Amino acid sequence: MIRAAAKRLHGHARRTPLLSSPFLDDIAGRKVYVKPECLQHTGSFKFRGGWSALSGMDPEKRSHGVIAYSSGNHAQGIALAARMHGVPSVIVMPSDAPALKIENTKALGAEVVLYDRDSEDRDEIGARLAAQRGLTLIKPFDDPLVIAGQGTTGLEIAQDANSLGIQNADILVCCGGGGFSSGIALACAADAPTLRIRPVEPEGFDDVARSLISGKIERNATTSGNICDAIITPQPGDLTFPILHRLCGPGLTITENEALRAMAQAFLRLKLVAEPGGAAALAAALYRPNDITGDAVIVTISGGNVDPAQFAQALATLP
Amino acid sequence: MIRAAAKRLHGHARRTPLLSSPFLDDIAGRKVYVKPECLQHTGSFKFRGGWSALSGMDPEKRSHGVIAYSSGNHAQGIALAARMHGVPSVIVMPSDAPALKIENTKALGAEVVLYDRDSEDRDEIGARLAAQRGLTLIKPFDDPLVIAGQGTTGLEIAQDANSLGIQNADILVCCGGGGFSSGIALACAADAPTLRIRPVEPEGFDDVARSLISGKIERNATTSGNICDAIITPQPGDLTFPILHRLCGPGLTITENEALRAMAQAFLRLKLVAEPGGAAALAAALYRPNDITGDAVIVTISGGNVDPAQFAQALATLP
Repeated sequence: MIRAAAKRLHGHARRTPLLSSPFLDDIAGRKVYVKPECLQHTGSFKFRGGWSALSGMDPEKRSHGVIAYSSGNHAQGIALAARMHGVPSVIVMPSDAPALKIENTKALGAEVVLYDRDSEDRDEIGARLAAQRGLTLIKPFDDPLVIAGQGTTGLEIAQDANSLGIQNADILVCCGGGGFSSGIALACAADAPTLRIRPVEPEGFDDVARSLISGKIERNATTSGNICDAIITPQPGDLTFPILHRLCGPGLTITENEALRAMAQAFLRLKLVAEPGGAAALAAALYRPNDITGDAVIVTISGGNVDPAQFAQALATLP
Repeated sequence: MIRAAAKRLHGHARRTPLLSSPFLDDIAGRKVYVKPECLQHTGSFKFRGGWSALSGMDPEKRSHGVIAYSSGNHAQGIALAARMHGVPSVIVMPSDAPALKIENTKALGAEVVLYDRDSEDRDEIGARLAAQRGLTLIKPFDDPLVIAGQGTTGLEIAQDANSLGIQNADILVCCGGGGFSSGIALACAADAPTLRIRPVEPEGFDDVARSLISGKIERNATTSGNICDAIITPQPGDLTFPILHRLCGPGLTITENEALRAMAQAFLRLKLVAEPGGAAALAAALYRPNDITGDAVIVTISGGNVDPAQFAQALATLP
């Protein structure tokens, strides 16, 4: 399914490079390779899953339109993929999502419906609207076509790692519900089996790390109150968790301050704009070197949709 | 020479993509393609010329080391290329160059010599130090190997433009001494002859634009006092000007405020960090649409080495 998704994405999604900087290697104490999915269309890897879902869907069903619920990156990915397919989209977004993400989703042609993250259930809202209007629900991670689309990132990482001769390395993946991590893990299990995928989450929102330890799905106590909004979900998915459990190494966690400092390093050394959640894996590589093994580490920057004020906060961590 | 340089750069310089965003197309009123050389090693296209010069040099001469004068981007390009060749480098930098560029040049292993931009002549300082220490001077633009290295950017633009079917477009190039513009112009004259190269400079520092009109080399009244430091030089080069005069369309100028606003758009829509001079061509595409012809426009982002405080100034232009 991932290889089939790669064929459908060819010429529509961007083939992102693998970047590096000697300055980052110095901080991390090993060679750091960065997969900048902030350079993907709509500023995050989510366009891959969105395009995969839209392009892999029954055309008649697709013509009635799609619906998605998302804190912002899945929203934009679906909105653009729907617009490029010429079909309507409705996006259910938390009212505390970054203003930039809400605006962009509207500008990409979607109808946006806001909900309260703590008191309302987005799955329920999504299912109700889908039934009312005949829309097809595209879940943010627990959907085989979406996982396959995100997994195309893993095919590219495997290809580049193989041509660079990288064998002994962790791949750190910014992790919310696990669609990105499980897709990359499936792709690398086939194409670069010596690399180990490890999910990275914010401290206090480490449902995946705890689930990997306990062997069953664990929940977060809350899903608000952290700047890494893009990678916070109530719990790993029913489809993604078994894949993560089978294929991933132990999870890693990072603090909000580490995410901000990693954003500043991405600015300074890679000339990239990362959002807090998108910088989580880079933060782990730079500031948690003892939790990682291998001569090299590969990190995803999962997205770059950050408000200017929050970006300024990250720059303020620089000396 | 450009094709030979491309062979030497292969596997050492980055092959940068051609990016776009529907939001930028809306502002510009035409399709905008961006060549992000801020993603090049050392954060600017200058690494291409540096690597070309070092790798194309007589090995015995090279072993004694190299010297360069630069406001910062050529400095870093030469410093890293010299370190990767295992030879020493001395860089003569203006004392008002951005702190980040001076620090990076030192961190990349170069010996930095500072001079006053208004009262001292960097060519003279460079020539003296070269003679004293047996170093080979690598000029920032008036050197055939350097022009050939920068021209490899043009080969890549031509290749991508041809595969995207772009025929009727201006290529806007951030222009200082003209090494980048003349290299791209030579490459495109061969590989994409329907595209027209146009240098972009800051208002009041438009020596190249005026030289193209008068047909002879014109000077700037001063070389300080503008945030676009990376693309301000006293006058076009003796080698670059005849190439520019033969191959380029009319020059364009932009204001400092337009450069800052273009930096903010690169942040918002491309997730890229551009420095003021590096955003000049994007600024012309976005804010001077009536000075451009064609259904599409291709712009270079020549560099991204900007201090955090200056970047914050660019973000502050956003509503």
